[in-house]
Amino acid sequence: MLTFIGLGLYDKEDISEKGLRLIRNADHVFLEGYTSRLMGATREELEAYYHKPVRLLRRVDVEQHPEELLDCALRENTVFLCAGDPMVSTTHADLRIRAADRGIPTAIIHGASIVSAVCGLSGLQNYRFGKSCSVPFPQAHWSPTSPMEVISENRNLRLHTLVYLDIQDDHYMTVGEGIDLLEEMARKKQVKIPLYVGIARAGSDAPVVRAGPAGALRCADFGPPLHVLVVPGELHDMEKTYLSRFAGLC
Amino acid sequence: MLTFIGLGLYDKEDISEKGLRLIRNADHVFLEGYTSRLMGATREELEAYYHKPVRLLRRVDVEQHPEELLDCALRENTVFLCAGDPMVSTTHADLRIRAADRGIPTAIIHGASIVSAVCGLSGLQNYRFGKSCSVPFPQAHWSPTSPMEVISENRNLRLHTLVYLDIQDDHYMTVGEGIDLLEEMARKKQVKIPLYVGIARAGSDAPVVRAGPAGALRCADFGPPLHVLVVPGELHDMEKTYLSRFAGLC
Repeated sequence: MLTFIGLGLYDKEDISEKGLRLIRNADHVFLEGYTSRLMGATREELEAYYHKPVRLLRRVDVEQHPEELLDCALRENTVFLCAGDPMVSTTHADLRIRAADRGIPTAIIHGASIVSAVCGLSGLQNYRFGKSCSVPFPQAHWSPTSPMEVISENRNLRLHTLVYLDIQDDHYMTVGEGIDLLEEMARKKQVKIPLYVGIARAGSDAPVVRAGPAGALRCADFGPPLHVLVVPGELHDMEKTYLSRFAGLC
Repeated sequence: MLTFIGLGLYDKEDISEKGLRLIRNADHVFLEGYTSRLMGATREELEAYYHKPVRLLRRVDVEQHPEELLDCALRENTVFLCAGDPMVSTTHADLRIRAADRGIPTAIIHGASIVSAVCGLSGLQNYRFGKSCSVPFPQAHWSPTSPMEVISENRNLRLHTLVYLDIQDDHYMTVGEGIDLLEEMARKKQVKIPLYVGIARAGSDAPVVRAGPAGALRCADFGPPLHVLVVPGELHDMEKTYLSRFAGLC
């Protein structure tokens, strides 16, 4: 049996009661640490909390060579942990299909995800978000403008856009870096983005949420990762009030 | 202090460790039961689990007369519980603003939400969803087609649509009822929806997920509530495979 368990947003206590019970009863515990990270907990803290060894999986262990993991799941109760909610990343969907191909029963225990948490943090309403997008770290000879195409299309429909910021090994894109990259794309596309919402450490005791134009937000101190951005479309009155009260919108 | 706590998707064990700890330490526990419901737990079961009395809030207690709740929060630690993740519903955002207006500190403990769970249940990828919509129960002289406008606009952009089904008191819209209403809208708008994905009891031990055309899904037995629908846009290969493996897509 292979159970995918979402750990939620920030630390060891963000897991559900159901998820924790299943981990403590599991024969094998694997943790995927490349699509996202639980920034408020180390692997050692998780092991102490679960009373279990936790094996860390690299991308290659899941996407190229999942044999060890699947062999465990074929014989015994195996849990696959990830930050947020499982399957929001396609690499997990692929693993569940591979498990089914080998006749391994699977299940999912859901966890809190930034996909919905962004509504509470920003006050921006769920049904007014369009398609989301990701900003990758720039690479030589490659500077995509597709995230700005998504944002512009959403803004034309008066919708908000959730913008995921890149993670590469131990390098986490900040709100400031994300805004710089988006502003460069906006210049190329000759569009103007009047307002950004930056969010840091969703799910922690001290999340930072700030709304403002690019210049103001680029200078704001958001503190340690993870960071995420929202580019709002048209704001309703209640959204404006919420951003004024809880995100310093002037 | 007023803390909004998401209970997650289905039963008492879907709450986070952090959320449960805060409830057990709270002076006052309120449960909002009109925007969504935890179908796998009664109020009495929650009270036994929390070792606390739980006061049930009707819409009027939150939207018209939140004074009692806010008076409690002004003096002592008060938690406001809801199914899913708080603030996905606008009524919660309004309450947080009212609390801030009275100088009451607020916080949010996130829970698993259908907004992200739908990805794991259906295999449809998060970044390929557009704006979501809701199908209301029909009322005399009022039959909106706006949900089909949202779906069509998303499908033109090759995006999936999450379709919330109405809850009115103890009346929960089923997948079959939702499809009938959407098909009627589709006829009026002269569009054709080739594929639906119906989901029942997300977060439970026995969720049902079925993909197929309207005719087939309308006859399928999804069992007890809550139900939700997805209208897929263009399917990627992995999404097709996932729906074949886990949702009976032919």
